[in-house]
Amino acid sequence: MKNVSKYQRQYFMPPVECNDWVKKTYVDKAPIWCSVDLRDGNQALIVPMSLEQKVEFFKLLVKIGFKEIEVGFPAASETEYNFLRTLIDQNLIPDDVTIQVLTQAREHIIRKTFEAVKGAPRAIVHVYNSTSVAQREQVFKKSKEEILKIAVDGAKLLKKLADETEGNFAFEYSPESFTGTEPEYALEVCNAVLDVWQPTADNKCIINLPSTVQNAMPHVYASQIEYMSKNMKYRENVLISLHPHNDRGCGISDAEMGLLAGADRIEGTLFGNGERTGNVDIVTLALNMYSQGVDPQLDFSDMPAISAAYEEYTGMHIDMRSPYGGSLVFAAFSGSHQDAIAKGMHYREEHDCPTWTVPYLPIDPTDIGRRYEADVIRINSQSGKGGVGYILEQNFGLNLPAKMREAMGYAAKDSSDHQHKELQPQEIFNLFKEKFEDITTPFNISEVHFKQHNGIIAEVTVECEGKSVVAIAAGNGRLNAVSNALKNQFRLEYDLTTYQEHALEQSSSSKAIAYVGIRSKDGEHYWGAGVDQDIIRASINALLTAINNMVNVK
Amino acid sequence: MKNVSKYQRQYFMPPVECNDWVKKTYVDKAPIWCSVDLRDGNQALIVPMSLEQKVEFFKLLVKIGFKEIEVGFPAASETEYNFLRTLIDQNLIPDDVTIQVLTQAREHIIRKTFEAVKGAPRAIVHVYNSTSVAQREQVFKKSKEEILKIAVDGAKLLKKLADETEGNFAFEYSPESFTGTEPEYALEVCNAVLDVWQPTADNKCIINLPSTVQNAMPHVYASQIEYMSKNMKYRENVLISLHPHNDRGCGISDAEMGLLAGADRIEGTLFGNGERTGNVDIVTLALNMYSQGVDPQLDFSDMPAISAAYEEYTGMHIDMRSPYGGSLVFAAFSGSHQDAIAKGMHYREEHDCPTWTVPYLPIDPTDIGRRYEADVIRINSQSGKGGVGYILEQNFGLNLPAKMREAMGYAAKDSSDHQHKELQPQEIFNLFKEKFEDITTPFNISEVHFKQHNGIIAEVTVECEGKSVVAIAAGNGRLNAVSNALKNQFRLEYDLTTYQEHALEQSSSSKAIAYVGIRSKDGEHYWGAGVDQDIIRASINALLTAINNMVNVK
Repeated sequence: MKNVSKYQRQYFMPPVECNDWVKKTYVDKAPIWCSVDLRDGNQALIVPMSLEQKVEFFKLLVKIGFKEIEVGFPAASETEYNFLRTLIDQNLIPDDVTIQVLTQAREHIIRKTFEAVKGAPRAIVHVYNSTSVAQREQVFKKSKEEILKIAVDGAKLLKKLADETEGNFAFEYSPESFTGTEPEYALEVCNAVLDVWQPTADNKCIINLPSTVQNAMPHVYASQIEYMSKNMKYRENVLISLHPHNDRGCGISDAEMGLLAGADRIEGTLFGNGERTGNVDIVTLALNMYSQGVDPQLDFSDMPAISAAYEEYTGMHIDMRSPYGGSLVFAAFSGSHQDAIAKGMHYREEHDCPTWTVPYLPIDPTDIGRRYEADVIRINSQSGKGGVGYILEQNFGLNLPAKMREAMGYAAKDSSDHQHKELQPQEIFNLFKEKFEDITTPFNISEVHFKQHNGIIAEVTVECEGKSVVAIAAGNGRLNAVSNALKNQFRLEYDLTTYQEHALEQSSSSKAIAYVGIRSKDGEHYWGAGVDQDIIRASINALLTAINNMVNVK
Repeated sequence: MKNVSKYQRQYFMPPVECNDWVKKTYVDKAPIWCSVDLRDGNQALIVPMSLEQKVEFFKLLVKIGFKEIEVGFPAASETEYNFLRTLIDQNLIPDDVTIQVLTQAREHIIRKTFEAVKGAPRAIVHVYNSTSVAQREQVFKKSKEEILKIAVDGAKLLKKLADETEGNFAFEYSPESFTGTEPEYALEVCNAVLDVWQPTADNKCIINLPSTVQNAMPHVYASQIEYMSKNMKYRENVLISLHPHNDRGCGISDAEMGLLAGADRIEGTLFGNGERTGNVDIVTLALNMYSQGVDPQLDFSDMPAISAAYEEYTGMHIDMRSPYGGSLVFAAFSGSHQDAIAKGMHYREEHDCPTWTVPYLPIDPTDIGRRYEADVIRINSQSGKGGVGYILEQNFGLNLPAKMREAMGYAAKDSSDHQHKELQPQEIFNLFKEKFEDITTPFNISEVHFKQHNGIIAEVTVECEGKSVVAIAAGNGRLNAVSNALKNQFRLEYDLTTYQEHALEQSSSSKAIAYVGIRSKDGEHYWGAGVDQDIIRASINALLTAINNMVNVK
């Protein structure tokens, strides 16, 4: 690409190596979660939410389990101001939930913010100013000292107004555009702010270190966080918060590695809504922990309801491949994946496994309200015997012989390929019936009588091309006798290779299904199934169908 | 969530610490890219692509610059077989492109694959078998030795058939489900395969280490890759390939950290299509490199065309927040972001910057065929003066005075808030004209005559509520004289605070626009603009509009 020389790396490594975090391999406890859906998420919507939608979204967040929720930038617009006042004046904030409001470090905006937030039962006032090289030079045209002074003046005013205003306030400071800031300078600014606030064990402060714009790999961010964490004043009384964006597609890794590097808190949104590529997706973060046996302290057990509410309030669409939430993320279309999942599910039942280990499914979809039938095994032209067999077994109680599953797999693949569409379970069941169940042309059997005499003798009345014929033969069993009668009468050449039957549990009329496989003299296999309350009749119908399938091919 | 105890971590760390990669901070050269869009991507579509769509997609991939393209699993279905034959028989494979075909390590499938691929000018035959604990136990029910034998037997058969078959073949082996496999065992299997193939400098082999299902953080994967790379036999003649999926939302980080850890090659897809959460997104990987000044060797300079073609062929939709490709990823709705971007763009022009450093824009959108006007500054109720001013300047050539931009910003915010929708540039321009341009009620000026006599004397004919009045006054300039005439005649109290004008460059009729700001006696500011070929008339219209705006409010 021709303009590549226009770009340079614009991140800054800490002055000392900070890679202790790399020795930890997983996040072993849930961070403090702060939802910024109603602020960062909202401001990135083509159409921001209405007051009513925000109230509903707030209730959803509370229900999921968020204890800290950023509710807006109340000095910025009337809608945001009104929403904040609604939450406070209508007592919509539960006792264990703290709201958070955002303000720039500018005097009139801070003052407006405190007017808006007065009377809040518990509120975090979150003040920020931009500290990156680009913003200092291009936007603010100020020196490092001047930018630091903006932060410190803001911190002082917060402290003063918090004392003067009704309500309970905690403080948060963000060196906005942290990832474009020299770590030593970001540290200097944060420590200067903390010197103003003097956090204590009873009155902790939050220092939020955003990857406002992702400009480096996640281990660079982790090093920066570790450096900040190791060198921050009042560290034991400071909660280090992360606010990752996703410009390089690494929001999740920024958050997770940042936690290993010492952070205590995450600001993010459901499904990664937010400016540009979005904020870090808290659904994914939480369920990543869950999948490793760590309780995320958020409840996503009804994902379909959460997804629907999210889409309604925001007008956004959850991507089909969005981890855990997307419609396709548990789907297996490919034959080998379906086969492995079906075997894994069987293994799980047979071995009473305590731990979830089913191949290709990072978590049990039913733990988050998804359904095996609709979401996992899906059938198209890439699918095979395992998936089709699983669908027929799970949805319709049919347990086909292994070899017959293969034939049914090819039939489904072929049907999907020619129709150029996915097949729904009912369509697969219909296809099974069409191809393999009770086929009565050219041969049909209208009557069968058995006699026991040196084995079994069958007297079979066969209808064929408008004529009725009675065929008689002996066999070592009833099906064998019927088979011999047909063979003799019509000069059919095949071997009976497979016979299986089982009750149809899902049917209230206690019917049985029989499956019969035959091999023609040229080695091809043909299959049939028969359903009847009489298991003998079911097996005869199955045989008849297999024979008709063979005859119809030739 | 109640079932958390059902989960355990299921990854395996290398037997020795392998964290040298962490000292590198960026990917400094493009890997070998292999597109698996037509195989892994295709098999994960609800409706897999038709032959014609695959051919078009193949041409798109070639145009972007892929030199290795996995084209299918030809033994698996007739469609895949036919596509492969079409490519070979119709000579659709350019001289510098190698196709790749996938096969399980099973004899009849390998044989079918070679039948399908015969005559290929250059083909990589990619053989795999599953090696993870879960697949060994649950799916294959085989010991480590037996699983290794499947791999080795497959490798031997590949070598044999490659010798016997017309065409030029290279080999690739994947220990499928590598991330669920003990690294020592995966290494043992790979080295056993390499012992069969005996790669040389002229005939390198590919060992592909997929995160088939992501089950750990990316630095765990990087450690595993570093371990494999450091301990692989024939290392200098082996290309280590990565094939990351995205179950934990970390596909990009897996790929990038894996490259730092020693990998040479990436298998992925456009926009991360692929099984479940998808394969790693090569668009993001390539443009992440690009944004740091590293040539990705792939051409995404016409992203809109590539996106449209991708969506047409696959039937998938590119998520609005998908890095680089999504419709919203360069969008700034928020006032402060718009302001910073506008200032950054101005700074860039003024300082003739060689390096791209504009805040909130990781790359210049025009480098990939996106447009500033449509994709960056977008106006809704979250927006402010910076964005609105930028839109009016860039799209319509209007350079409003700073204070007037603020007034126009509030007007746009208010309009968007009440209409509950985003405003398009033309709507903003219309709003500007409605609110600020040539407003002629209650006062209109039908005629003006000037005389020069101790300054300027204006004789102004004013129409107001159906009556016509002539007002005369002196002033130190033409506009001042007109203003004085109006003030005297109608007892208006205000100060003229701002006057600016500029030619309307975009107009062929060389009109000028004048902006006038006045302050009423209660300190409020009112604004007007006037457009005319005569600059005097333009400024009079601007003043008149400002006065009318003041009078109409009261």
